[in-house]
Parts: sequence; structure tokens; C-alpha cells
Amino acid sequence: MKTMKAWVLGNPGELTLVDKPVPRPGTAEVLVRVDATAICATDLEVISHGPPAVIGGEPPFNKNFTPGHEYMGTIVEVGPTVDEFVVGERVAVEIHAGCGRCERCRQGMYTSCLNYGRNYGEFNKGHRANGFTTDGGFAQYAVNHTNTLVRVPDHVSDEVATLIVTAGTAMYGLDVLGGLVAGESLIVTGAGPIGLSAVSVGKALGAHPVILTDIVDSRLQVGTRVGADVVINASKENVVNAVKQLTNGRGADLVFECSGAPNAVNDAIHMLKRGGRVCLGAFSNTPSLVDIGHVVTNNIYLYGIRGEGQSAVRRAASLIAQKKLDPSPLHTHTFPFDQLPKAIQYFRDKLDGAIKVVIKPQELRD
Amino acid sequence: MKTMKAWVLGNPGELTLVDKPVPRPGTAEVLVRVDATAICATDLEVISHGPPAVIGGEPPFNKNFTPGHEYMGTIVEVGPTVDEFVVGERVAVEIHAGCGRCERCRQGMYTSCLNYGRNYGEFNKGHRANGFTTDGGFAQYAVNHTNTLVRVPDHVSDEVATLIVTAGTAMYGLDVLGGLVAGESLIVTGAGPIGLSAVSVGKALGAHPVILTDIVDSRLQVGTRVGADVVINASKENVVNAVKQLTNGRGADLVFECSGAPNAVNDAIHMLKRGGRVCLGAFSNTPSLVDIGHVVTNNIYLYGIRGEGQSAVRRAASLIAQKKLDPSPLHTHTFPFDQLPKAIQYFRDKLDGAIKVVIKPQELRD
Amino acid sequence: MKTMKAWVLGNPGELTLVDKPVPRPGTAEVLVRVDATAICATDLEVISHGPPAVIGGEPPFNKNFTPGHEYMGTIVEVGPTVDEFVVGERVAVEIHAGCGRCERCRQGMYTSCLNYGRNYGEFNKGHRANGFTTDGGFAQYAVNHTNTLVRVPDHVSDEVATLIVTAGTAMYGLDVLGGLVAGESLIVTGAGPIGLSAVSVGKALGAHPVILTDIVDSRLQVGTRVGADVVINASKENVVNAVKQLTNGRGADLVFECSGAPNAVNDAIHMLKRGGRVCLGAFSNTPSLVDIGHVVTNNIYLYGIRGEGQSAVRRAASLIAQKKLDPSPLHTHTFPFDQLPKAIQYFRDKLDGAIKVVIKPQELRD
Amino acid sequence: MKTMKAWVLGNPGELTLVDKPVPRPGTAEVLVRVDATAICATDLEVISHGPPAVIGGEPPFNKNFTPGHEYMGTIVEVGPTVDEFVVGERVAVEIHAGCGRCERCRQGMYTSCLNYGRNYGEFNKGHRANGFTTDGGFAQYAVNHTNTLVRVPDHVSDEVATLIVTAGTAMYGLDVLGGLVAGESLIVTGAGPIGLSAVSVGKALGAHPVILTDIVDSRLQVGTRVGADVVINASKENVVNAVKQLTNGRGADLVFECSGAPNAVNDAIHMLKRGGRVCLGAFSNTPSLVDIGHVVTNNIYLYGIRGEGQSAVRRAASLIAQKKLDPSPLHTHTFPFDQLPKAIQYFRDKLDGAIKVVIKPQELRD
Repeated sequence: MKTMKAWVLGNPGELTLVDKPVPRPGTAEVLVRVDATAICATDLEVISHGPPAVIGGEPPFNKNFTPGHEYMGTIVEVGPTVDEFVVGERVAVEIHAGCGRCERCRQGMYTSCLNYGRNYGEFNKGHRANGFTTDGGFAQYAVNHTNTLVRVPDHVSDEVATLIVTAGTAMYGLDVLGGLVAGESLIVTGAGPIGLSAVSVGKALGAHPVILTDIVDSRLQVGTRVGADVVINASKENVVNAVKQLTNGRGADLVFECSGAPNAVNDAIHMLKRGGRVCLGAFSNTPSLVDIGHVVTNNIYLYGIRGEGQSAVRRAASLIAQKKLDPSPLHTHTFPFDQLPKAIQYFRDKLDGAIKVVIKPQELRD
Repeated sequence: MKTMKAWVLGNPGELTLVDKPVPRPGTAEVLVRVDATAICATDLEVISHGPPAVIGGEPPFNKNFTPGHEYMGTIVEVGPTVDEFVVGERVAVEIHAGCGRCERCRQGMYTSCLNYGRNYGEFNKGHRANGFTTDGGFAQYAVNHTNTLVRVPDHVSDEVATLIVTAGTAMYGLDVLGGLVAGESLIVTGAGPIGLSAVSVGKALGAHPVILTDIVDSRLQVGTRVGADVVINASKENVVNAVKQLTNGRGADLVFECSGAPNAVNDAIHMLKRGGRVCLGAFSNTPSLVDIGHVVTNNIYLYGIRGEGQSAVRRAASLIAQKKLDPSPLHTHTFPFDQLPKAIQYFRDKLDGAIKVVIKPQELRD
Repeated sequence: MKTMKAWVLGNPGELTLVDKPVPRPGTAEVLVRVDATAICATDLEVISHGPPAVIGGEPPFNKNFTPGHEYMGTIVEVGPTVDEFVVGERVAVEIHAGCGRCERCRQGMYTSCLNYGRNYGEFNKGHRANGFTTDGGFAQYAVNHTNTLVRVPDHVSDEVATLIVTAGTAMYGLDVLGGLVAGESLIVTGAGPIGLSAVSVGKALGAHPVILTDIVDSRLQVGTRVGADVVINASKENVVNAVKQLTNGRGADLVFECSGAPNAVNDAIHMLKRGGRVCLGAFSNTPSLVDIGHVVTNNIYLYGIRGEGQSAVRRAASLIAQKKLDPSPLHTHTFPFDQLPKAIQYFRDKLDGAIKVVIKPQELRD
Repeated sequence: MKTMKAWVLGNPGELTLVDKPVPRPGTAEVLVRVDATAICATDLEVISHGPPAVIGGEPPFNKNFTPGHEYMGTIVEVGPTVDEFVVGERVAVEIHAGCGRCERCRQGMYTSCLNYGRNYGEFNKGHRANGFTTDGGFAQYAVNHTNTLVRVPDHVSDEVATLIVTAGTAMYGLDVLGGLVAGESLIVTGAGPIGLSAVSVGKALGAHPVILTDIVDSRLQVGTRVGADVVINASKENVVNAVKQLTNGRGADLVFECSGAPNAVNDAIHMLKRGGRVCLGAFSNTPSLVDIGHVVTNNIYLYGIRGEGQSAVRRAASLIAQKKLDPSPLHTHTFPFDQLPKAIQYFRDKLDGAIKVVIKPQELRD
């Protein structure tokens, strides 16, 4: 049995680099040699508290579990019945492989799979969420269902390819907002990786104006680089008033909330014109005060999204392949595989302007 | 100039019965002789505080304004260009006639009209919301745009016909929840007129089970009469747990929140299965604490609705005409026109089991 | 190895009763003891020409293939990982189990699976369409994916339960027409089992009026029994003119074409009001002349459906369980299992008023 | 009363330049000084046969009617209640102002207005379709409802601005195909102005690949200039086979039929993969043979569109303002106003490579 290097989760917050068997792909699965893995804020959550909202799930601590869900690599083996991909192809991943058996999967809502986390035991439903409920990309190899793979365009580096899933999540957020965003005013609140991706995808699809809010000027500057028409520092201005002024007093068509700030949802609904829509792509750990009366009397719709969906990752990859979308400004740092703790520190503390920090699982210091 | 009796709003909370000119229908409008008008909780709001969320609106006090928006009657005159209706037809009303000129009206979202309340002055956009921003049905006559009229089936009494708009609002709520409710589990929270209508419309369209929650047993009993499969007294049971148990532990497909209780939205999202949807049809005057993390990690969508929309009133009227829907259990009391204050008292204080209380504008005591 | 009686297809049109091994359920599958199987017009097509439009498919002749796709029965064994159903439950079937791996399945469009027919060989994608590409219900036992099962309400007989999938197909047709059919005028062309089911499902959901056309008066009489408001004999009247007259000269909102008559599509588009919609649920073997100019200048949409979809069978079963829908008038004849050829003759030639003819696979003459 | 020069329609095919009163804008209308008007194939149809499919319409001959529907200009007067636009703004037009009173308008489907053509007589419903049922742009001035106006970006010439409505029609076609076209394969059949616009809008929104078919090589070359990834000459190749080869044998996701060729619809449905969709934007004057069986067994949807809709012209204008879309390659010729017959000849006979031919109503030879 072949072995590989992989980071595994011990007690909450503890990651250890170990040797682990290389997994084998089953039916409809492939083995990916992981070439690059980015760190996401949700990884920090998983490492500290376990994956959010796993139905019937057990905490993942001290179970030899490998986190990491934003990765890309090269197919080195295909499992039985796979002809969708061949060995040697470069692929990026999306996270969720639904069970294919529950009501939601049958509706095409595979990210809302009712068997989330059930890929174990007697009634294994086959759901996979790599880095959440099944082993992820902080390892040299990973197994992926073919549904969770998209091809990486040749001109895209390994590091940038880890951001395809982020772009796909942003695109999915615009899908649930109705999809027809050309000429619509779009407010993105929060200039983290999802928010910055929402700006660039929104621009690629013709939203106008695209207005970005955050409290960190350097992040807002990156927002301008990826296409924001206007940026607003929420620590210096009243963002609701500012958006109203920029939208002829009526408010915006669409808000994509990516900050998770406590007041973000309530601000979002007040930024909208009547009949506007909010996508909720982030959250804090405490409940938020929301003016429901404003929601009702203004016909506002709010859409929570759990990551990507509706094959949006594939569509985002196509925009990147066509050079209509370029996630590269979001990638700031790369570390060797065995420096994951340092990479996490840079990401978490935003050291040296870090946005997306990537490790290279095939690179070990010696 | 002919005159009529009409109630007008003085200072907040003050209604006076006066003589007022009978209005004249303009282009695309008709004059309705009002035969019956029901009292809605929003009327109390309008009378005390003015209509909610009128963009650019002025308070309606001491302006000779007549409230009342749930009425029916008989067409006695048609304005220029009207051949959609003829004199003598019995009609019930919906509330909103959009401007037909703003983005929302062009999308068919006439209840979200961006010119809400602008039917005055130099730039009169023609929006009407009778009983909110234009004179309503606490009067012997009212003018209505043809868009706000539906025919009343012969077998339906005047009193019951005032409830067609309520049924239409309930139907619209199910529309925004996706419309395909047959076989879906539907929770209705709050057994007021909208909630009870949601139960009966949900049943008519095949939702199953339909579960109703409230804190008043007598209201829950009416819920059973209009078709609720299960009723839960929220003051005696934990409704979230109860709903989970009744739905195999997974939660419901749909929640229609009609209570406006402070915790109602947060309870609603926790009653749902992953990927479930909430329609918000009621609200309190203070912000509510909402667990946004639960919304995001469970792909929940929330839809605020401001009254009816999408011609749902017409569709509800068709179900009533076909005897698939019967709002009559909601009508409990009728008073003569000049007893409006007493009628309001019965409605507001739920005296004698009052649910829908109706006045008859053609009936004066002498 | 246990054996069972099963009909198998030899040369085109040749069915033989043989002994065959009882199949074994795989992962996510169950074994159904078939209690009743109805005959569908598509069965005749499969038996004579093979299943329509199987991508990359081979003709099914002389391959020990068992047709029959409208069946119900009792679960006698569950395969690995199955806890959605237990042994002893009565179930009816839907036809299509998608591969879960192609674009369409990921969108929830499992009846449009791009791997239709690929459940064999090295790259077996797991698609199943029992009675089309995998063994069906003209046998004493059949294997079904759990996705293709719905529970049968207690009060529904075996014979009537075979019609649940037909009702589900009709419901799916109304789904693609927009779903919100209450108060909409619906024309059903063709009074075969799907057409008659469309009438009864349309009525259950509140369509009004529901108008049925056919050329056989006895079928139209059944249409009246299942709820048609008006029936038109197309051999005696010009159906386009008749529908126009019945719809105030404007035409209908919706047409569900179930006749497959050569002129049916062209008639359908001319029956509609501007902006109307057609569902195509039947077809003849030759191309039809269609006035495309009328389609374009009247904003008409046409939707082809290949059987059921979107879990409509489950929703139809719920309506039947609630007694809002009753398919029993469609069932006319029952024969023992070994009289399948006679049953087919009755069905095909409409002998003795036959509509739905059922065989009972557990009943042999001796 | 001021007069203007205008072309009017006499007998079929006869256009005469006359003096006519300058029209006055009514409520919600403006007066546009027409600066440029393009010729559309539908203009030729109107001039020869009258507007297609006008409900209850009379032929427009010898009624002093002015055709022309693709124009732009400058607002010189605003009617009562108009504050959406001010005098001096450059505007392009869309065609349809719905009545705002019928079922379709209330649904937001204003191009399917059931009162199409009824802007005359006692029951004038206010519908306008300039150049079809109300006076159009082959004149020095025209009246437009504010709903039919979009602002022209500064960097866009008068001539190119006449093409905004064409781009809007193409965008609307993609809307009805689902809107989420990024990464989807799109076949455009017919390289006329709508087809070429469909190519460029499809590319702007990220469709890939975009394949254009026509029988004229010079038109296909323009297709390449506006972004087609592949072009196919249908007179030299079997387009169905070619598309299949270019799409891995499975067929395309979407077809936008813009040729009106007799076999175009049947070819379109055979170019698609299962579950694919066709937008019908053109038609010939004779019915077409369509393989309905293929439509049904492959779950194909077809959508007829009558021009633009859903505010798509405004969204297209936004893409042009953002320089994501450039219709200028379609404009080939400009003539003075009094040379309309010559302009028509160039357009109709495709003289000198003519695609879009424009006249300048403010320019007279002397």
C-alpha cells in the first residue's frame, strides 16, 4: 500500500503532518494528485469547531481526518466506470457530491443534500464534501467524485486554479439572485475572497455599477483591481446612505453579503430598492437583528447559499478559460506543504496583505 | 355633485363619519358601490400610524383620507376605455394598481411598484393602493383601476367576498414559495385571517401535511375547520420540536409565517429541512433576532411579500368559484356601516371569537 | 437461484413467457414483487420497434429483455444501504433513474439523462429505465432504484396504483407549463390515459375551464367523468374555433397535447391566446407541419416531455392519497399474467371500451 | 401646428415622403427628434403586407401610417407626468409599450400584450408598437412611451445606437433560453442582424462555444468579427452533423434560430443535446415540418419570441455602455432621409455587403 504525506486533525485546532495510505478511487471517482490547496475561512472553522451544520454528524477530532477543500491537481487514476476524465488531466474541485438519492439531489440541489455527511456505516448514502466530511486537500492525494471536478484551462497556474471553486461560489450566488445581472446594480459587502470573486464575476456578467464595501482599505484597493466601480469603507461612511446616494435614492437591485458582520444583513436589506434581493454567503456565530417589517413591506427576498451549486463552478471555469474572469489578484502567498501552520497564520492574520494563501502538497522542504 | 357617507381619518386613531363627494372614475377605472368591507390588522396600523413603507409618503392624518382595503361591491359606472367590466357586475378588489411605468411594474411585480404612493402632484404616476394611499372602502363608493377587480361568484355572499383578497394574498405567498405545493409539508405560523387562508389555500392545492401553529386554541379550532391536518399551540409546546417530530426529524418543506411574533422567523428557519423556504407575510414593529448562520448553512430562502401579487387574487377567486376553497369560516361578525368603531373594537380585541368583521356601507341605521 | 415467470421479447412483436432468474437488488435498489402491471401505448412501440430515442442504444430484440413500465407491487428485499423503504411496503414506480453523473442529472432533469441506456459494459453509468432499457414489469419480480418508488396509499387497489405513474406524468406536464394552473384555461387534446389523467390532475389543481378534445365519444364521456368541463369531438367540430369561442375569442392559456395526431401541434398553437404555452406529451412517427410564424409572433412556448420528472409522481401520489385525485375511472380491464397477449389486444384495439388494461403477475391460470 | 417630413405608406409597397403634423406627447410620453433609423426585415414585411399577427387589426395601407421601428434620437419635449427623462437626452427605442391592463402586461409580458394594436377608438387600451401599429421612425419626429426608451451611451454614434434594440432582442432571446449562458454551447442559425447580435451578446455573457451558421460566407465573416468561435456554411456542410461533431457528439445546449429557413427548426432540434432549448426569433411564411417525436423524446423546449421583452433592451444598452458589447460591425451604410427607397434596396438586396442600413431623418438633400 502506497503512503502519502497528509495533515490530520487532532484535538480542536491541532494539525499534524503524518503518513497516511493513498486512498483508492471507487466507482465514479478519480484519484487526484494534489498540486495546490488554498486556505479558506471555513477551513479555520472546521479545524477549530468541526464542519458547520452537518446533519447527524460527529465532531471530526482525533479521527485521522484531513481538512482542506479548495484544491486542484492532476488525475493519476480513474475508478471503475469513469470515462468523463482521463489520467493526466489537470482539474480543480468543487466541494459537494450529493447522494443522488434524496429529494434535494433529485431536484438538482446537491449542495442541500439531505444525506449530508452520510458516507459511512451501513446506510452509507455516498455523500461527499471533501475537507468537511470526507478527507480533503491538505494532503498529497485525494479522491473525488467526477461530479466535483472541472478542467483547468492551460493558461491558469496551479495556485490560481485553487480559486476556481471560489469563483464558482460567487457565480452561484449571482445565479440565485436571478442570474440576469447585466445592467443591474450589485452591492458586495465584504472584501474577502468570496466578496472579491463576486465583484469580478459580477463585472464579467455585466452588472453595473458594482459597489464593494469593507472596513480595510487595502482590501478595497484589491476590489478596485478586480473591477469594482465604487468602493466604500464601512468604518468611515454609513454604507446604507452611501449606496442610496449612488443609486439615485432608490437603492440597489442586488446585494451579495460576504462579510458575516453582525449588522450586515440588516444593512443589506436597507440598501435595496423595493423588490430587491439579497444573497447571504457569510455569517457570524451569533444571531443578527433583522428588520423583518422592512423585508415584508418591501418585497425583499433573501437567499442563503451553502457554497457552490448548479454546476456554477464549471461555468466560472469557462469564464476563466475565456479570459473574461481572472482570479489571480486574489492569490497573494504560496508556502511549501509542510508550512501549512505558517500559511494558516498568514491567512488568518492577513499578514503581509494576505488574501488567498496556497500550499503546494507536492513540495516538501527536503 | 353627488355625495356619499364615508369614514375619514383625523388625528391618529380618529375616524369620523362625514359626507364626501362620490368620486368619478378616470380612464381604466370604475366606480364601485361598496357593499361590504372587512377590517384587516393593517387597517389598524394605517389608522394609528399611517401606511407602512410608503416611499416618499406623507402621513395621511387630517387629509380627508378614507381607509379600508378589503371590500367588495357592485360596479355602478365605468370610466373611459373600460370594456373589461360592465355596470352591474359584482366585484371584489385587490389592493395594488402599479404605475405601469417603473422597473418593477414592467417585470410584473406591481405590488413592488417603485412609485408606490405617487398618485398626486405634477408627476402623478398613477399608482393606487386603495385604503393605503388612495381612498378606500370605509365609504359608500370607491374608485378602482380595472387591474384591481375580480368577479365575485354568484354563490358567494357579500361578506365572504371581502375575503377573496385575503385568500389571494395567501395564494401569492404559496406562489413565491414555488407554487408546486402538492405533497409538500407546509407549516403556517399564526392563525389570523392570512394564516387561516394559507391553510385553506394550501389544502386546496394539495399541500400535505398542513400544520398550523398559534397560541389561541379557539383560532386553532378554526384552523382545523378550514383543513389543517395538525394544529400546535405554541404556548404549550415547543413548535420547532413538534414540527421536526411530525416531519420525520428532517423538518418541513415550507413555512408561511403569518404571526409577526418576535421569534417567528427564527423558529421558522429551524422548522425547515435543508433547502426549505419561508414566506414572510407578517411582522412586528421591532427587529427580530435571526440565526443567519442557519440560513446560510442550510440553503434557506426567505421571501417577504407585501400583500397579493401576480394576479393571485384572480386565481383564488377561481378556486372559490369552483368551490374548492371556502373562506366563509373566517367571517364571524357583520355590523352596519355607522358602527365601524364597534366593528374595529370587536376585530382588535377578538371579542366573541371575532376573526373577520365586516361592515356594510349601504346599511345605515336610519 | 430462484426463478420467476417473465415475458421476454424475441423478434419485433414477439413476446414469450419464460422462466428467468429473479434479479437481485444492488446498492440503492430494492426487489419488488410485481402485483399489477398496466399496458401503455409506449409498450406497444417498445415491443414493435424498441424504445424511442435511446442514445447509443441497440435494439432490444432477442436479448431476453422484459418490457412493461407501469407497475406496482410489494417490496420483498432491499439492497445495500437502503433505509428509505422497508420490506413489505406497497410501492408504485416511476420509470427513470438517472445516472446522477451527467449535466442533466445534476440539474435535476433526470428524465433527460445524457447517459440514457448506459447501464451496461465497462462504463456502466447506472441509468435505468425499467421496461425501456432495463427489465420491466411484465414479470413476477423487478428491481428498482429507490428514486423510482413511491408509496401506494392503503385505499388504492393494485390495479389503480399502476396508474400513479400516469398521473405523475400528467402532473409533470402541468409543472412544465408553469405549475400555477388554478384559474387558467387548460385544453387537453387526446383522451388516452395521459390525456384523461391531465384532465383530472388539472381539475384537482384548479384549472378552469378544462376542455378535452378527442374523436371518440366514449372516451370523451370518460373525460366528463374525470372532470372535464367541456368536451369536443374533433371529428365533428373545428376544435380551434370551438376553443376560441369557449375562451372569449382570445384563446386558451395552456394546451397539453396528448393525441399525437398529425395536426395536433399546429392546432394547439392556434388554440392559445398570445403568450400561451403547449406541453407536448405525445407524437406520431412522422414530422408535423407547424406554423412557426404563429409561434414567433405570439410568443408561444412549447415543452416536450419524456414521461414524468421533477418528482411529480410523488406529488401525484400525494393527491391520490388525499383523495383529491382518483385515477380509477381509467382502469377498465384486468387479465391474469399469462394472458398478456390478450390484454395487449384489448388495449390496442380498445375492445369493450378498454382504456387501461392491467395484468396481475402473481396470478397464473394454474 | 408644426409640420415635419415623414414617409407614409400608401398601397402595399408604396412609400411617399409627405409633410405631416409633428405629434404631441401625451401622459407618460415624450417627443423624440429622430436622428437615425435603421431598416429591419420586418419593415419590409410591414410595408408589403402589414404588421404580422395584430389581433383585430386592420391593414395599414393608405392611412397616412409611418413605418420604421429601429430608431434613436433626442428628446425635445416631455408629456405630462414625465420625470423619468428630460429634454436633451439621447435615447434609443424599444418597440412595445403594453397596455398595462391585460393579463400578460400584469405578468410583465408586455410584448405579448393582449391588446396589441388597440390604441384607437372608444376602448383605446393604449398599446403602442411604433412602426407596427402606431407611427414609427421613418419621420423627423416620433412619440414614445417612456417605457420604450433607453439612454444612449455618449461614445455610441447615432447610427450604432439604432442597433441597441436589435441587441436587446438578442439578449431577450438568451433570457428565455434560461439566461445562465456562461459556459453553455450556443448555436446561432442565420447571420442577419438578430443572429449576429445573438452571437455578440452570447459572447459577452460567456457562452462557449458560439457557433454561427448561414449560407453566405461574407456574413459568416462578420460573424467571426463579432465573436463567433466557429462558423459553418450551411450550403456546404450538413450543419446538424457539424454541430454534433463540434459538441462531442452530444449536441449543443442552446440554439437561437434567426434564419427563418424552412428546415431551420427541424435542424435546430436535431442539433441539441437531450434537454436542450431553442429560441425561435425568425420565421418564414409557410409552415415547417418538425419532428415532434424528437422534441418529445428528448425533452426539448422551444420558445417563440416577438421582439424584445423583460427590459432586455435596457440591459443590452448597459453592456454597450460598458463596452462589453459593440454592435458597430453590423452598421454598413447610411443614407439621407429622402433616400429611404434606395436604403431599402441596399438592405433588401444586400448590395455592397449591406447588413444594417440607416437613414438620418434630420438630413435632407436640400
